[in-house]
Formats: sequence, structure tokens, C-alpha cells
Amino acid sequence: MQELQDRIKNDGQVIGTGILKVDSFLNHQIDPEFIMRMGREFAQRFSKDNVTKVLTVEASGIAVAMAAALALGVPVVFAKKKAAVTQQGDMYTAEVYSFTRRESVHITVEKQYISDRDVVLIIDDFLAHGEALNGLASIVKQAGACLAGAGIVIEKRFQGGGQQLRKEGIRIESLAAIEYMEPGNIRFAE
Amino acid sequence: MQELQDRIKNDGQVIGTGILKVDSFLNHQIDPEFIMRMGREFAQRFSKDNVTKVLTVEASGIAVAMAAALALGVPVVFAKKKAAVTQQGDMYTAEVYSFTRRESVHITVEKQYISDRDVVLIIDDFLAHGEALNGLASIVKQAGACLAGAGIVIEKRFQGGGQQLRKEGIRIESLAAIEYMEPGNIRFAE
Repeated sequence: MQELQDRIKNDGQVIGTGILKVDSFLNHQIDPEFIMRMGREFAQRFSKDNVTKVLTVEASGIAVAMAAALALGVPVVFAKKKAAVTQQGDMYTAEVYSFTRRESVHITVEKQYISDRDVVLIIDDFLAHGEALNGLASIVKQAGACLAGAGIVIEKRFQGGGQQLRKEGIRIESLAAIEYMEPGNIRFAE
Repeated sequence: MQELQDRIKNDGQVIGTGILKVDSFLNHQIDPEFIMRMGREFAQRFSKDNVTKVLTVEASGIAVAMAAALALGVPVVFAKKKAAVTQQGDMYTAEVYSFTRRESVHITVEKQYISDRDVVLIIDDFLAHGEALNGLASIVKQAGACLAGAGIVIEKRFQGGGQQLRKEGIRIESLAAIEYMEPGNIRFAE
């Protein structure tokens, strides 16, 4: 998606060798119209997959997931990173290590919100080492649901998560895939 | 908002005396079309306030905030509950105690995303004791921005936060205000 590549080049900030900060439109401040265009792009790419539910994980994935779900006409479920006192039901759970936060969290989804009749599209803002996507795919599997694939806003391809998960048979659609980056220089995969 | 009252009555689950669980359309699973209608309702109620930015806090507030921001044609900023390694800039910060999680968190907003030229509309899913709204209002104040008011999906009026903050001069628009609740019985304020 050319508009996304342009925004990343203009507004993105590369920190060290592995972190891309896109807080001006995706991870802290949100540009709602742009998010809606990304949602429609995901909906179009998965338009023939009979998706019944969009799954993401709080927090940065929620806006894009909602935009995609709106375009597909289906609900969103967002996995939680911490059980609230309101969560009492049976839950699917997966452990996810966050390299940016340097900690493991258990993500949870209440069983009643994904069933074996669902066709699930996973949406997330970033794909790096693949930890979050792997955890979400595990939840889809635990539910016995069908996984249509994953829609990712920015794939940091050089961190290898996407390659590994594609090998395992997961269809991954990235709106922008970064092949290499360092401060002042971001190269996208074609 | 009648539709919201109906959804709360039909799908909401009262736990103990203080907790309302609305995970089927707001806090875990999201009904995107319904969220968009709520966003448009907020935009209409604040249509004359020249809002330049919508402010919320991760995670459950993000979807409704995005819907309101989309209808108003302005960006959303969501305060973060935990500093990520990507956050390095100067930040506004406020301490917020969560009664549902029984812990205090520091919410943060990078200074570049709210300035003294902004007119801010705060959006959140719940207003109970007022802790989150108070923290977000503090961030608006720290920024020297103008606070247009707060749009709340569900106000648990019996917990008193709204009353206190209205006394302090904050305009609060709730789409549903609960006066009293116990399992099987929810009474709305008129």
C-alpha cells in the first residue's frame, strides 16, 4: 500500500536496529480516515474467504481490526493481555513474548466469542518475530475455528516471524513489508 | 441512547454490586456498526465545540474514540498504560487507580500529540469512580489545552465519579447512565 509506505518514510522513526516508531498515525495517535482505508484494503484482500470474525489483541491492533471488521460486516474480538475481574468464563489462552516490552504475557479470549463455526481473520499492527500472531493463531486453533489468514499493517520481514508462520501454512497479507531499516533509511520489500 | 440501554439490558451481566460486564459488544467483542452509531452520537453532541482531538486510554476506549473521531474528522490519541521502549519523548503523565483491576497505573501521552492549541474531547467506555476521566482531564490540563468535555458510553452514576467531576466543571455526556443495578435488575437514570 503506497500511502502506508509514504507515511512510514515520512513519519516513522527507526530506533536502534529493530524498532520502528509510528506513533503519529498508528500506535499512539491514530489517523482514523487512514485506518479506515487500511481496513477496507484488508477486507478486499480477504473478501472471498467468508470471514465471520476479526481477531486482534489489545491495544494497538483494535483500531485497524475495527476498520477491517466494519468493511467485512463482522464483529471484532480483541484478546486481553491481563485478566480483568470481569473475566470469569472459560478462556482460550496463549503465552506471548513481547520483544518491545521484554516480558511474556498471557493473552486470553473467552470461549463464547470464537467457536468452531467461525472463519477468523487475525489483524494486527505489527509482525516482527511472530509471537503475537502465533499466540492468536493458537487461540483460533484451540477454538476449532478456521483461520482465513492474517492482515498485518507493517511486517518487519527481516525479523523472520512472517517467514516462519508462512512456512507453517498461514496466509499473511502485509500492507507494508520492511526488508531492511536503520535510522534514516527504510527499504521496503516489493 | 435507547439502543444502548436495550443492549445493556439484554446482554449486560451484573457481577456483585458494582461491575457491569458488556463483553459481547464493547469490552471484549466489538459490534463495529453499533460502535460507529455511538461515535456519531458523541460527534453530534459535541458538534459545536470545535474539537481538534479525541483523547482516550487503552484499550476498551479505542474503538469508540475512533468512531467519534471519524465522525468529527479529527485524530485520536490514546494514553498508554505502560511505557513501551518506543516511548522516549517528553510525556504528560497521570496516576489512575483501577477499581476493576485493583491497581494503580500511570497513563502517559507524549507531549507532541496534545498542545495548548487543541480542543480535546475525552472518550471512554465507562465512568465509575471517575479515576480514568480525572487522569485524562489532568493530561489535557498539563498540555494547556481546552477540554470540550467527556463522552462516556456507560456511566455508573451510583459510583459518584460523574457527579464529582461535573461539580469541578467538566461537561460529561453519557450515552447510558445507570442509577442502580444488581443481578437481573438495571435501572437507568432519565
